[in-house]
Amino acid sequence: MLLSLKLTQPFIIYNFNFALGSRYVSKTATKTVSEFEYDAPSMKTAVPGPKSQELLRQLGEIQNVGAIHFFCNYEESRGNYLVDVDGNRMLDVYTQISSIPIGYNHPALMKVMTNPNNVSAFVNRPALGILPPENFPDKLIESVLSIAPSGMTRVQTMACGSCSNENAFKTMFIWYRNKERGYANPSEQEVGTCMINQSPGCPDLSILSFMGAFHGRTLGCLATTHSKVIHKLDIPSFDWPIAPFPKLQYPLEEFVRENAQEEARCLEEVEDLIVKWRQKGKPVAGIVIEPIQAEGGDNHASPDFFIKLRNIARKHGCAFHVDEVQTGGGTTGKFWAHEHWGLDDPADVVSFSKKLLTGGYYHRDELQPDKPYRIFNTWMGDPSKNLFLSEVLNVIRRENLLEEVTRSGKTLLQGLYALQTQYPHILSRARGQGTFCAIDACNDATRDSIMIKARNKGLFMGSCGEKTIRFRPTLVFKEYHVHQLLNILNDVLAEHK
Amino acid sequence: MLLSLKLTQPFIIYNFNFALGSRYVSKTATKTVSEFEYDAPSMKTAVPGPKSQELLRQLGEIQNVGAIHFFCNYEESRGNYLVDVDGNRMLDVYTQISSIPIGYNHPALMKVMTNPNNVSAFVNRPALGILPPENFPDKLIESVLSIAPSGMTRVQTMACGSCSNENAFKTMFIWYRNKERGYANPSEQEVGTCMINQSPGCPDLSILSFMGAFHGRTLGCLATTHSKVIHKLDIPSFDWPIAPFPKLQYPLEEFVRENAQEEARCLEEVEDLIVKWRQKGKPVAGIVIEPIQAEGGDNHASPDFFIKLRNIARKHGCAFHVDEVQTGGGTTGKFWAHEHWGLDDPADVVSFSKKLLTGGYYHRDELQPDKPYRIFNTWMGDPSKNLFLSEVLNVIRRENLLEEVTRSGKTLLQGLYALQTQYPHILSRARGQGTFCAIDACNDATRDSIMIKARNKGLFMGSCGEKTIRFRPTLVFKEYHVHQLLNILNDVLAEHK
Repeated sequence: MLLSLKLTQPFIIYNFNFALGSRYVSKTATKTVSEFEYDAPSMKTAVPGPKSQELLRQLGEIQNVGAIHFFCNYEESRGNYLVDVDGNRMLDVYTQISSIPIGYNHPALMKVMTNPNNVSAFVNRPALGILPPENFPDKLIESVLSIAPSGMTRVQTMACGSCSNENAFKTMFIWYRNKERGYANPSEQEVGTCMINQSPGCPDLSILSFMGAFHGRTLGCLATTHSKVIHKLDIPSFDWPIAPFPKLQYPLEEFVRENAQEEARCLEEVEDLIVKWRQKGKPVAGIVIEPIQAEGGDNHASPDFFIKLRNIARKHGCAFHVDEVQTGGGTTGKFWAHEHWGLDDPADVVSFSKKLLTGGYYHRDELQPDKPYRIFNTWMGDPSKNLFLSEVLNVIRRENLLEEVTRSGKTLLQGLYALQTQYPHILSRARGQGTFCAIDACNDATRDSIMIKARNKGLFMGSCGEKTIRFRPTLVFKEYHVHQLLNILNDVLAEHK
Repeated sequence: MLLSLKLTQPFIIYNFNFALGSRYVSKTATKTVSEFEYDAPSMKTAVPGPKSQELLRQLGEIQNVGAIHFFCNYEESRGNYLVDVDGNRMLDVYTQISSIPIGYNHPALMKVMTNPNNVSAFVNRPALGILPPENFPDKLIESVLSIAPSGMTRVQTMACGSCSNENAFKTMFIWYRNKERGYANPSEQEVGTCMINQSPGCPDLSILSFMGAFHGRTLGCLATTHSKVIHKLDIPSFDWPIAPFPKLQYPLEEFVRENAQEEARCLEEVEDLIVKWRQKGKPVAGIVIEPIQAEGGDNHASPDFFIKLRNIARKHGCAFHVDEVQTGGGTTGKFWAHEHWGLDDPADVVSFSKKLLTGGYYHRDELQPDKPYRIFNTWMGDPSKNLFLSEVLNVIRRENLLEEVTRSGKTLLQGLYALQTQYPHILSRARGQGTFCAIDACNDATRDSIMIKARNKGLFMGSCGEKTIRFRPTLVFKEYHVHQLLNILNDVLAEHK
């Protein structure tokens, strides 16, 4: 069990520490009493170390290894600390691209593996759409359905985030066409043309997405992804509408009027695009949006923006799809980021993956496909992942982790504000919700340099957008971990030329 | 260990049994000595039984359950026998849509779960593209790379078949555009347009596929899938060329001349389409094909057809992608179905999933993406699946399962020939390679009726195409299992009105 620490004046403590300079493990960080975690980072080599470099060479014979940071010793990793093959132990606030919910080798997850009742779910992966296991309804109810967003009782599991969004899009297309044809059977022409990829059987429908969005990299998802050139270049796409995502000024509470204007501009553009694409003969069947654009640079918008967007979708008969693949799972302090908007009934579809360990999407009753095999594939998820998710949810509830996230997140954001005040020539635009925080560097080279230096001091962070550092810690990331993070970052910045 | 039986005259034995009528467990089927398997089917209720029906009602509150056959007791299932929640034990020759390689609860796979060295791979799912585990190169070498098709040393794992094909397509598009631009950096115009889904950054490239093909159901894959209306209706698609797949007459050896003509016709059409789409400004970057069209109705073509197709691809500068998602893993008697073609170097890309437990694709060196993050997603596969695959491969080698498959497959096909001779008004077009066999019913209603009656007698089969029964048994499907299958089928046919 992790001890919940209540440091009430972290802000002052940081400022004091910053003045002290180069220690990169804060003495103020109270030790954890966790049975399974380490106290602090511990570095033995620069990263990647010699063993990682040798393994990189080996794997390079098999795959492009340009994206690999280092090789890991997952057996030795614990909680928030990722251990590499050279024995370096880093505080991990990137967590496998935001997909480790309660830390490495959590005892609750280890137990799943030793429970003999669970073996079959791992060894005999079923085709869930045709031959589900006896406990499948119960396991859905105790895992994904127990955290269903308000108003949603239907869920379809999938293997990953991209498959979840692809099938969510298909669900919206099917729903939209069924509405259009008055729920009648498809015409002979539709039946005939769909087999050869032609309209009206394969209709010219579109999904409206936002500049800077990331919804995955399979061809359907990729047509709604607009975050980086490297994702999109050379891949055929669909002519679907792309609206501007608000470019807000931070801290949000200091720029309320300016930000509201910017959001109004974007919403106006959304409506214009819906009309324009309808006129082009490619009506918008659905709008897809992240509550916080993650890969695209941690871009926030206000609850008011999302509420108005939801109303625009309803007004024009488009489904409203909230992509919570990165924001879901508790990291913003609520289980779903869109719960911060204050709407009971905000979406038609909500997709998830990453921290939920299984992919999938919830949807309203009326988006249920009218026939079997319309939404289908061989595996339709993986029940062994649902077993882990159930345990994750038990830990979240038992340890009140959403409250912890809120507390740690406040401390983190306050610390980032302090850092950007102290280093205004290097850092700006600190922002966040829960521990889903980010800060911008003055340019990409500085961002990359800070990240490498921090890594060599035992802090592993992620990047996003053009020059942003993103923080995606686990849900067991406590205030003393925040202190470690801020102290290392401060040391790096103090040394920064 | 399963005993390898060598019945040398199964054909005569069947005919004798068929005359005896209604026993559905053959007395000629010698008992298995397997430590873990059952002897024979054992039926207690009609299927779905009352417990399955109650669970269907429960799951119906959460999902569309129209495709569900029954609920399973996977704990009690063993080897080739699938046990349902009502205590019915069926000989399973559909195997979770062809995805169970060595039977249910195989002891070798159970051991993976109890080995403490493996726990971390299940509990800490890594982002393989950035932070692979120490043993990742070794595990790739001992699992997927140990069975790499000739000439292929590079592999990328993925979570499922659709993701594998989507990323294989992307790999071909990237390769094709790099060739076109002479491996120079992309132009400013390409960089700018790709972010808004427009050409030339998102180029109008195409993948040539075949009528009747199935390559998955995400939007890219679905544009190359043309097997059933229910897969395609209402989903936007790409204007990509679709060639006819040869409609051959069976048995292949009796219609060599006619089939060669049909194949020549299709190949001519392929070349015409490549030229036509180039003229349309949508050049064909790759050709994707299954060695045996599975979902589309178990349609075969000759090695000569594939060799010529491969040459056409080379001639026109298109990549050649062999989709072995269903045919791979040993079920045709060779590990890869395309090895039957007798070419050393048949493909640029070979994709897999299902029986390999992990998805992925092999590719030639020159299709390696030139930069990191071009082919990328959060998980990039799942190392825990590679652990199971290694054990599956050990069992295949230790027990010479590919030879077993060849032997069982011959017995099965001979038996199907005997049945269609005996019931020519009901059955026709028996065909197969290894145990990857199929037979057609006179129409879909008859096919469906045969399948339901067989299920109630303890034989669970799959369907494909319009009126085809497909056989997709495990690799531990022995000759005595074939006898059980044929006897049940014979009993059903004898009773058929």
